[in-house]
Amino acid sequence: MDVKTIQLKKTILEDNDRDADLLRRQMEDQRTCYMNIMSSPGSGKTTTLIRTIRTLEEIAREEGREPLKIGVMEADIDSDVDARTIIEETGAPAVQLHTGGMCHLDADMSRQGLAEIGAGDLDLVFLENVGNLVCPAEFDTGAAMDIVILSVPEGDDKPLKYPLMFREADVVLVNKIDAAPVFDFDKERFRANLGSCNEDAPVFFISAAKGEGAREWCSWLDQQVRSYLDK
Amino acid sequence: MDVKTIQLKKTILEDNDRDADLLRRQMEDQRTCYMNIMSSPGSGKTTTLIRTIRTLEEIAREEGREPLKIGVMEADIDSDVDARTIIEETGAPAVQLHTGGMCHLDADMSRQGLAEIGAGDLDLVFLENVGNLVCPAEFDTGAAMDIVILSVPEGDDKPLKYPLMFREADVVLVNKIDAAPVFDFDKERFRANLGSCNEDAPVFFISAAKGEGAREWCSWLDQQVRSYLDK
Repeated sequence: MDVKTIQLKKTILEDNDRDADLLRRQMEDQRTCYMNIMSSPGSGKTTTLIRTIRTLEEIAREEGREPLKIGVMEADIDSDVDARTIIEETGAPAVQLHTGGMCHLDADMSRQGLAEIGAGDLDLVFLENVGNLVCPAEFDTGAAMDIVILSVPEGDDKPLKYPLMFREADVVLVNKIDAAPVFDFDKERFRANLGSCNEDAPVFFISAAKGEGAREWCSWLDQQVRSYLDK
Repeated sequence: MDVKTIQLKKTILEDNDRDADLLRRQMEDQRTCYMNIMSSPGSGKTTTLIRTIRTLEEIAREEGREPLKIGVMEADIDSDVDARTIIEETGAPAVQLHTGGMCHLDADMSRQGLAEIGAGDLDLVFLENVGNLVCPAEFDTGAAMDIVILSVPEGDDKPLKYPLMFREADVVLVNKIDAAPVFDFDKERFRANLGSCNEDAPVFFISAAKGEGAREWCSWLDQQVRSYLDK
């Protein structure tokens, strides 16, 4: 199967923050809810996306609504396995963005991807950012919402060590929650650690692989997207 | 307990590669084996260090040798929990290096840390680099050896996605190996994926928390360090 792979050009723009605000307004005007997913490598971003896309479809079907038109941009330093997986598992359009060794995406790189995926015809576009808890937090991608995923094996202390990432989060997903007993992950300790840098972000505990918690997370997300599109 | 925390100054030097070679020669001349540990957040770098320091001591004791004089530099964007843990759990001297938001360490930042920890009196200094599978691979720290840790829950496909990091590795530790059945981690698939970017690095499968494989890894490491010191 052919996966469209885009080699991103390095941004020349000096002021990424201003460009990100511009992109956010453009997406609002064209009614595309653009969301940026960030996490460490291997925390389950792709599996979470697959589970999320399927559950959003289920919710729409049960409520007799048209499903959201969803697309996915998979950013990676190399390889196209993630875009391929998304297409095979969900049927959603997906493109692979190659960052050319860069450890993050900025607003202009996002814009290149959004153009390639045809965001104008989509309700919701997810960006799976490069797996990295540090640099992506420093670059506003112009997304309407920053979703941060932490997986249980990484430990409940991570907000103390990567405070900027957790401060930037609009919502936090704690994935692989079924492994909590094995890894001595304490939900309340995690909430306390998160609270030290972010008091506002809702937290959902999920197992993307097994489905636990997915319904609660996606009901919330569905509401956020619909209220964005109705603005 | 007071942990010495050093705010690293940003490097002004243009040519990090040349500076790294210089630092490597300086460490060789003063007989300090300096090793750089890199991994994702939460893969168990600190736990691996504790297990490694203890096991190296055991090996020396059993063989009737003086234990190696070991120090640890804990690099982090924020917090000093790791240096504190090392001191409490092993008694080894440890300093905390704050990178001021930077996602990696370079040679000059390493030099600042090595001076602070008094590397001249130590046989072996470990740097626990910032948890990040991307950027630290791009900056030579001047270390004699690059140790890359991958943890089982991150998945056996990571060398495909972060090829530079795995290409730079002189040795790869696969940690949390006791969790392999839970996470469908296949050792042979991992070896094949690693082989696509690095055919030389030996691989050790360990559980730093439980001790599995630690002896084999540390016997190999002990030999590497002693042959370095005897050069």
